[in-house]
Amino acid sequence: MSGGTSAQQKYERNGARDMQYHHVDYQKLETFCHEVFKGYHFSEEESRQITDVLLAADLSGIESHGIQRLIRYHQEITGGLVKLDAKPEVVFETPLSAVIEGNDCMGQTLGIRAMNMAIDKARQHGFGMITVRNSNHYGIAGYYAKMAVEADMIGMCMTNTEAIMVPTFGRQAMLGTNPIAFAMPADPVPFSFDAATTVVPRGKLEAERMRGNGLPLGWALDENGHDSTEADRVLKNIISKAGGGILPLGGSGELTSGYKGYGFAMLCEICTAILSGGTTSNYIYKTPGRANIAQCFIALDYGMFGDKQAIRAALDKYLQEVRDSDKAEGQERIYIHGEKSAESRARVLREGVSLNEKTYDEMKMIAAYTGAEAYLPPYLD
Amino acid sequence: MSGGTSAQQKYERNGARDMQYHHVDYQKLETFCHEVFKGYHFSEEESRQITDVLLAADLSGIESHGIQRLIRYHQEITGGLVKLDAKPEVVFETPLSAVIEGNDCMGQTLGIRAMNMAIDKARQHGFGMITVRNSNHYGIAGYYAKMAVEADMIGMCMTNTEAIMVPTFGRQAMLGTNPIAFAMPADPVPFSFDAATTVVPRGKLEAERMRGNGLPLGWALDENGHDSTEADRVLKNIISKAGGGILPLGGSGELTSGYKGYGFAMLCEICTAILSGGTTSNYIYKTPGRANIAQCFIALDYGMFGDKQAIRAALDKYLQEVRDSDKAEGQERIYIHGEKSAESRARVLREGVSLNEKTYDEMKMIAAYTGAEAYLPPYLD
Repeated sequence: MSGGTSAQQKYERNGARDMQYHHVDYQKLETFCHEVFKGYHFSEEESRQITDVLLAADLSGIESHGIQRLIRYHQEITGGLVKLDAKPEVVFETPLSAVIEGNDCMGQTLGIRAMNMAIDKARQHGFGMITVRNSNHYGIAGYYAKMAVEADMIGMCMTNTEAIMVPTFGRQAMLGTNPIAFAMPADPVPFSFDAATTVVPRGKLEAERMRGNGLPLGWALDENGHDSTEADRVLKNIISKAGGGILPLGGSGELTSGYKGYGFAMLCEICTAILSGGTTSNYIYKTPGRANIAQCFIALDYGMFGDKQAIRAALDKYLQEVRDSDKAEGQERIYIHGEKSAESRARVLREGVSLNEKTYDEMKMIAAYTGAEAYLPPYLD
Repeated sequence: MSGGTSAQQKYERNGARDMQYHHVDYQKLETFCHEVFKGYHFSEEESRQITDVLLAADLSGIESHGIQRLIRYHQEITGGLVKLDAKPEVVFETPLSAVIEGNDCMGQTLGIRAMNMAIDKARQHGFGMITVRNSNHYGIAGYYAKMAVEADMIGMCMTNTEAIMVPTFGRQAMLGTNPIAFAMPADPVPFSFDAATTVVPRGKLEAERMRGNGLPLGWALDENGHDSTEADRVLKNIISKAGGGILPLGGSGELTSGYKGYGFAMLCEICTAILSGGTTSNYIYKTPGRANIAQCFIALDYGMFGDKQAIRAALDKYLQEVRDSDKAEGQERIYIHGEKSAESRARVLREGVSLNEKTYDEMKMIAAYTGAEAYLPPYLD
């Protein structure tokens, strides 16, 4: 349900009150990114893939995972976390499954390769499930789930991440934000769910700190494992690993069932780290020079359960019934997961990608490093 | 994480301050249930299955789904919702999947049949997924997920239920409590997650009402779609379908990400109702004489991802690290999902099943109806 409708909302979301936002043309930004990744010596194909995943986030209104994150990928590529000359290896395979040793390749290229493999297996057998170990950050999980939708299948994708979630009754981060994405074809818009199993991502805490606000109760714990509304304290603790962190979906303790978010995060940890022979969240970014992230990619041909048109029609009917159901007083619309993203996409293609001056400055530096200066997209406003 | 440690806790949980609790021997209760179901003319095998699922809840400390619910099954069987002479039919099948038309059979016998079918398919191919439509209430989802664990596999199980969850920004219940269960073999205790995707089940609202307490904020909405702490008002609205209901995991609106619980509930709805050609939660119990519940059963042989012993050892290691991680101030233990149930099981086998006098009176009536009077277990205390 992320994705604002105006520059003002994006401005609010980032909490950067003193930061100016501008728009750049989407196509020009795409060309720029493509040239940047070629500048790091990714192949034409790889550069296209990485660009596509990166900007899918901006198109979906998930700014935190879009062009704003280019600087992070720059650091990971130039710093050696991403091994440019490495190749992934399929280390275990059955007709329905495979384990890929990522060898620290770029997360996006690994992700697209793995999801394509899952889709191929599902085309042949109805189901495919691929796990990847020793990967890097791969962008938004929803991108890969939606690849299956393009193939008229159900898609599911998960990744573990650096530990930031505190288990129920704990005070030490032992699980990641561990997003779970699930998507299925539907009209007029595919059903597309993509959610961290923490109550919120770290970016939301940072935004509240920048705004000088306290945190809502139920988001985070202090270093002693108590509920905390102090954004600065919580974030400093996270960075220094002093204890505390972000709560699982459902909040602290058992009153609003935080152990459920913790359980979904564990499900993610099992499907990614455990089933890939990889590394659990509490070891991510702990080995110098390696991220050690693990991911899981599932494609399921829903034709395994009968006539596809009838199944799809049943989903469309139900989603429309939910949309049409009574609204809460003061609300005008019930959203289906994926609708906000789809509407954001149309808007961004029309109005351009909104980015702040800090991001633009980083793009300039990266352009110089990769020789892509000529492709830097000019401000539209 | 349900499951108390003492009669006092159970007493508290039910909120029945004026209700006396007693213990009965587990084996005697099992024999009693077995005779009761034979009395309804279920076969020897079916009676054993239904008893096993029903009492698994009591063994796990999930009293709401155990012997306390016998009266509900009695009403559904004698009232005709459960068709005693019907047979399920496999209406669609592939090597990895099947759709079962439940024809209103007993949910537990359908569930065990479907999960065994999923396990058989997973034995042959690595993965099996069975959907069931036109079923009845089938007990705890976790029971079926754990059947796969017995076969040394990962198990997953979901059911939709009568609509009680209000989607984000809505005020009309359009989804069920829609539990998702996931289990995997581990030592010393299997990982076993089983959670409604509502923040709490209806029983927790009833318990607060009986205690005369207000509801915690974040559990429920009134008929206008506003947060409500009034247990009586919310429950009356649910019964009269006047609007409002229980919130998704994550609470109301977007502040603590209630749309995530709503999304997980939708995932459940898709895997159960949509993939079985069945009925979504908003139509459950709407057709006279039929429940129209839909379920989904998944077995996955984790040997599809490498050496099973190594995979299991990796899970055991991680779960132990989580157990051993720093506790919040004032807490002594971090639980892994499934531990409370396992500990409850040992206690119940030792001390007997705790049940209240109301349940015992219902058992007496049912014993008379089914000719099982001689098997009524005496109070131990």
